[in-house]
Amino acid sequence: MTGLIPAPHTPFHPDGSLNLEAVALQAELFRECGHETVFAVGSTGEWSSLTLDERRALGERWVEVAGDTLKVVLHVGAYCQADAIGLAAHAREIGATAVSAVAPGYFKPTGIPELVEFYRPIAAAVSPLPFYIYDIPSMTGVSMPMSRVMRAAKPVIPNLAGLKFTNSDFVELQECVRLDGGAYGVLLGFDECYFPGLTLGITGSVGNTYNYSSPIYRRIDAAFAKGDFETARREQLISVDLVKILQEFGFQAASKAIMPMLGVDCGPVRSPIRDLSKAERVALWERLSPLDAFPRPLRKPE
Amino acid sequence: MTGLIPAPHTPFHPDGSLNLEAVALQAELFRECGHETVFAVGSTGEWSSLTLDERRALGERWVEVAGDTLKVVLHVGAYCQADAIGLAAHAREIGATAVSAVAPGYFKPTGIPELVEFYRPIAAAVSPLPFYIYDIPSMTGVSMPMSRVMRAAKPVIPNLAGLKFTNSDFVELQECVRLDGGAYGVLLGFDECYFPGLTLGITGSVGNTYNYSSPIYRRIDAAFAKGDFETARREQLISVDLVKILQEFGFQAASKAIMPMLGVDCGPVRSPIRDLSKAERVALWERLSPLDAFPRPLRKPE
Amino acid sequence: MTGLIPAPHTPFHPDGSLNLEAVALQAELFRECGHETVFAVGSTGEWSSLTLDERRALGERWVEVAGDTLKVVLHVGAYCQADAIGLAAHAREIGATAVSAVAPGYFKPTGIPELVEFYRPIAAAVSPLPFYIYDIPSMTGVSMPMSRVMRAAKPVIPNLAGLKFTNSDFVELQECVRLDGGAYGVLLGFDECYFPGLTLGITGSVGNTYNYSSPIYRRIDAAFAKGDFETARREQLISVDLVKILQEFGFQAASKAIMPMLGVDCGPVRSPIRDLSKAERVALWERLSPLDAFPRPLRKPE
Amino acid sequence: MTGLIPAPHTPFHPDGSLNLEAVALQAELFRECGHETVFAVGSTGEWSSLTLDERRALGERWVEVAGDTLKVVLHVGAYCQADAIGLAAHAREIGATAVSAVAPGYFKPTGIPELVEFYRPIAAAVSPLPFYIYDIPSMTGVSMPMSRVMRAAKPVIPNLAGLKFTNSDFVELQECVRLDGGAYGVLLGFDECYFPGLTLGITGSVGNTYNYSSPIYRRIDAAFAKGDFETARREQLISVDLVKILQEFGFQAASKAIMPMLGVDCGPVRSPIRDLSKAERVALWERLSPLDAFPRPLRKPE
Repeated sequence: MTGLIPAPHTPFHPDGSLNLEAVALQAELFRECGHETVFAVGSTGEWSSLTLDERRALGERWVEVAGDTLKVVLHVGAYCQADAIGLAAHAREIGATAVSAVAPGYFKPTGIPELVEFYRPIAAAVSPLPFYIYDIPSMTGVSMPMSRVMRAAKPVIPNLAGLKFTNSDFVELQECVRLDGGAYGVLLGFDECYFPGLTLGITGSVGNTYNYSSPIYRRIDAAFAKGDFETARREQLISVDLVKILQEFGFQAASKAIMPMLGVDCGPVRSPIRDLSKAERVALWERLSPLDAFPRPLRKPE
Repeated sequence: MTGLIPAPHTPFHPDGSLNLEAVALQAELFRECGHETVFAVGSTGEWSSLTLDERRALGERWVEVAGDTLKVVLHVGAYCQADAIGLAAHAREIGATAVSAVAPGYFKPTGIPELVEFYRPIAAAVSPLPFYIYDIPSMTGVSMPMSRVMRAAKPVIPNLAGLKFTNSDFVELQECVRLDGGAYGVLLGFDECYFPGLTLGITGSVGNTYNYSSPIYRRIDAAFAKGDFETARREQLISVDLVKILQEFGFQAASKAIMPMLGVDCGPVRSPIRDLSKAERVALWERLSPLDAFPRPLRKPE
Repeated sequence: MTGLIPAPHTPFHPDGSLNLEAVALQAELFRECGHETVFAVGSTGEWSSLTLDERRALGERWVEVAGDTLKVVLHVGAYCQADAIGLAAHAREIGATAVSAVAPGYFKPTGIPELVEFYRPIAAAVSPLPFYIYDIPSMTGVSMPMSRVMRAAKPVIPNLAGLKFTNSDFVELQECVRLDGGAYGVLLGFDECYFPGLTLGITGSVGNTYNYSSPIYRRIDAAFAKGDFETARREQLISVDLVKILQEFGFQAASKAIMPMLGVDCGPVRSPIRDLSKAERVALWERLSPLDAFPRPLRKPE
Repeated sequence: MTGLIPAPHTPFHPDGSLNLEAVALQAELFRECGHETVFAVGSTGEWSSLTLDERRALGERWVEVAGDTLKVVLHVGAYCQADAIGLAAHAREIGATAVSAVAPGYFKPTGIPELVEFYRPIAAAVSPLPFYIYDIPSMTGVSMPMSRVMRAAKPVIPNLAGLKFTNSDFVELQECVRLDGGAYGVLLGFDECYFPGLTLGITGSVGNTYNYSSPIYRRIDAAFAKGDFETARREQLISVDLVKILQEFGFQAASKAIMPMLGVDCGPVRSPIRDLSKAERVALWERLSPLDAFPRPLRKPE
């Protein structure tokens, strides 16, 4: 579970229903980009806007499409622990490579033991598959020092393999990287800081922008390997520019609107996210076109 | 939908499974306390820790037990809009009196139109039953001025009947009360401020503590009706004391632990909430016993 | 120290220098409005934008102008404790009635003992004059439960007389009101909630809007005394409307811009607050004119 | 203004009065550590707890002691703009090398233009000396995107030379570094992330821990220059450990308590910071002694 790991969008038909056919197109694009792993049904995949049936069907489809060429990490988190356990068991049955789960964000754990106790049976349901904690305080409102959570979880979650760290706390990131001498996978979820993350020793990165702009990050990898920081910094700034443009239009919807520009139509977003209008799509295309960031030429929205 | 409205706990068996038998005991206590309405499957009811099947079964049971003696408001909110629509349709079919729904708190609406658009089809699914917005920013992280949300929702949600206002913003509360000359039900969800809420013109109140300490609030009602503020203030302070004691032990778990002291065993709480230990239950009982707050003598936990 | 207490603006000449002549005009307006006390050099008085020399000169002028007709509470708070002690000693020497001080908001006290220790020598420097704690977390970032602070301060600050509570926490307000059986002055600083504050037993209120719209609050007082809540609520909503209009234009600058409309020119505000333009002043006047809120006719800005 | 820049503590006598004699000892330690610049009277220097007279005296002393061997940046910020202007003019007169100022944090600027307008006359008062914006949202509560502030300030502050960035936002840090092709000094104030800061192109760093643990950062510099990331990461973790230990004891007070262990007694801290007890000093010494972090052996507190 290393390197660049895209978190795919969940494809919908124009009427908003799940579009499982498009998954093959996503997988084809990922292989073309050199990706070896996907992190499906997570935040980019609008997990909280999907029914459990849809989440299971989507997970099955990803495993099917992945075949031997992609590893599939499934996000099985849910605020209802029983739902998360059910999704975890399903992920194991269908042959996912690993699973991950967010913290419950309505009733929030009041301490580290409560969070670990929430995770324990979810992780047990996928054992012996690897389990990754998914830390994303900006969405869940659950903010705890992850190195301490990992230490508390280790004795009761034998299949604890690491964490997805969607968090800007670079002190805590250092702590997670050094845990048990580097025993855990630390997957940064903060695309605009991929390069400083690399310098701090992350083992991989799960990101939204790896769906459509992996060339930037491949160039960062190459520059980093040569110790060419000037280039790495310059490339990282393209990622910063890209993300800021997306934020102007509404990050999630704009990100999904890039996909058809690459020939992989993932359809609309679901409420409460607002979709881009036709005019906004064209304006987005105009803003993005000058960036040297994409693996295929960007088609103008029709 | 006026007066004191308890938000019942969801009863579980000792093994954590849903205990529908206990609902009749809850209803009996409520009738004894003079309650005319319940607000079920809400936050006190741990809605986010229940499966959809459990929520439906629980709603059905409440409607059945209520008969002609209690009105049943069902909380049908879910972060997945399709799930909320499904629960809303179910609530209408089984004969609920009204429904309410929280805002989506993972992907958060970026503006009032997005929130209204999230609510629109949920409310439509229960039409012509009354729909109440459920504002609880401390849990969802969605914080918007509710009077403006109500104004924006009115044209597209014809069955909009009011809101449950679990919010400490007493300026916005005043704005909601005066909307359209007092056209909407404003149900305060802030038990420790019931009395100042009354003075500001709330039409009712939905609360956790009305499950087990309605006598306090009945005395506030009586004092308020006579203009006896000294008494109202003194009684309100019993409520403040009660809530602070519960908070020391963990509010949700301690609140649920009171129920068996009144002869209505609602069982444990679900993760991520931590249950009280035996020793904590006894300590809680000792702290609560001196309060003149309960409709029945408090039994010591065994 | 009871009833409505205006927190006067600090008057400046058009060039931004201190205008001590205008203080007499402010005092005249206050007497006309029936005020008996002023709370000077506080937040409305832009204390943090004044030099120590200016604060002393302004305090002296207020005491002089007040004569026997007004009591003068001086805010002597400063983030530098030595500065606050110096101002406190000066306030005592010049004959202020009482003093108050904010919490230090750059280095913030990490606990209640640290806050009390900050206040202790400031209060000692004015002894035996009454000392009021000034709680305003929205400005200082120091947020502590004030009833516990009061309890901790009592043994070491013998002249502790109460607090100015610029805080929307109506649970903590209740706790402060009941402290030692009502032994302390609780001066609410939340004009839009003056009426619910009255019902909860506040002993007085210090406010920005009492400079120019005391008629609203006098009518609330009268209605409250008669138990006429409908009227009290309706009047309070005029206050809510007034404050919202001011907030649209920038609260502090708009509040100060009302004064010349009442014939009491207090001049510009200081950086970092931005002053209203001529066009904004006229627009503000147009918005305010319909409100039945002011003790004199509002003159149109020239 | 490059490299490691310590932000010295303000030395006090045991009775709390300013101890100007100790400044020479601080300067001697800094020269021994290879420092070429100091950033005096800033947050580590407890600026907000000093009177203006003390700030001027301390600034004079630093310039005197620095002679030709150290450059002296003086922090002249104050929430009262007139005070900041006065300090700035004084800094220029006494021969400081550059100045810096925090944003006003009581009345907070409501937008970038208001913040720039606050800074403009302060910077003008030191012209042509270089002016650095000092961004420290954790203390001031003023949080704005600094690259946009810099762009807005540039046309009206000709002597704008850069910023002290005490902020964990590594996206905004990248933006500041690239401004005008790297035209500005970007001085990171986040010691535990010095290494990732270096990789992102910071031009220097102002820090509290550079007072007493510069060896760590010198080793990071050396490793970074050789492209030896393993070493740089390992050394950075010593800094992380150090800071966490200090935080356990109370960061500011514990940091100041290290100085006498190095033979440079800077005395107590001022209220509202709480000083360490004798027992805490010994416990701190025991925790710090194993760290390979200090330029001189740590003496046990007596």
